[in-house]
Amino acid sequence: MERDASADLISSDRVSGTKVYATDGEELGSIDHLMIGKRSGRVEYSVMSFGGFLGINEKYHPIPWDALDYDTEKNGYVVNIDKSRLKDAPSIAKDERSGFNEDFGRNVYAYYGVMY
Amino acid sequence: MERDASADLISSDRVSGTKVYATDGEELGSIDHLMIGKRSGRVEYSVMSFGGFLGINEKYHPIPWDALDYDTEKNGYVVNIDKSRLKDAPSIAKDERSGFNEDFGRNVYAYYGVMY
Repeated sequence: MERDASADLISSDRVSGTKVYATDGEELGSIDHLMIGKRSGRVEYSVMSFGGFLGINEKYHPIPWDALDYDTEKNGYVVNIDKSRLKDAPSIAKDERSGFNEDFGRNVYAYYGVMY
Repeated sequence: MERDASADLISSDRVSGTKVYATDGEELGSIDHLMIGKRSGRVEYSVMSFGGFLGINEKYHPIPWDALDYDTEKNGYVVNIDKSRLKDAPSIAKDERSGFNEDFGRNVYAYYGVMY
């Protein structure tokens, strides 16, 4: 029997823009883009943007891929964290490309309880 | 000494739109999107679109991530194939989401000489 691998794939342009919810159902933001390891070809971070308006929120919240579960009812990702804790989640300024160093990575993965 | 991991990362929205060249320097097309394994979190395919105009070209060419080398002079990817061979490269209709099955995957990876 042929396995339908297409069911296991998602397009990067469908991931971007997908909403992210806390486990209590509250909307946190949406995925802005993915950070991919050049050599590994792995999604190292799903980068969430708050819903912030008026350009007030200038921070991204990078989340490990494995910390996001797709919820077909919500049509969005659920991350095992609530909004009140999110203010302490590792974040990075939107214009700061160089912040993704190893220490930051370890922080992010530890925060969401995922192996680095 | 701290390793600067940021140098090893690329944003998905920077990959999309990046041009793809053959080894002889000829422009083949550009990356349209990435197909990511939901469970693996890996880029299973970099999906190239021809430069086709007038909507004539309705096919995508999925390429394994490891078959693309970034060329800083060209500001684009180089794939080890020339344009004349590309007509035989595995392709998929743009509206055919379900075509990414295991047989197709093995074909694509074999074509570019990358382990599936």
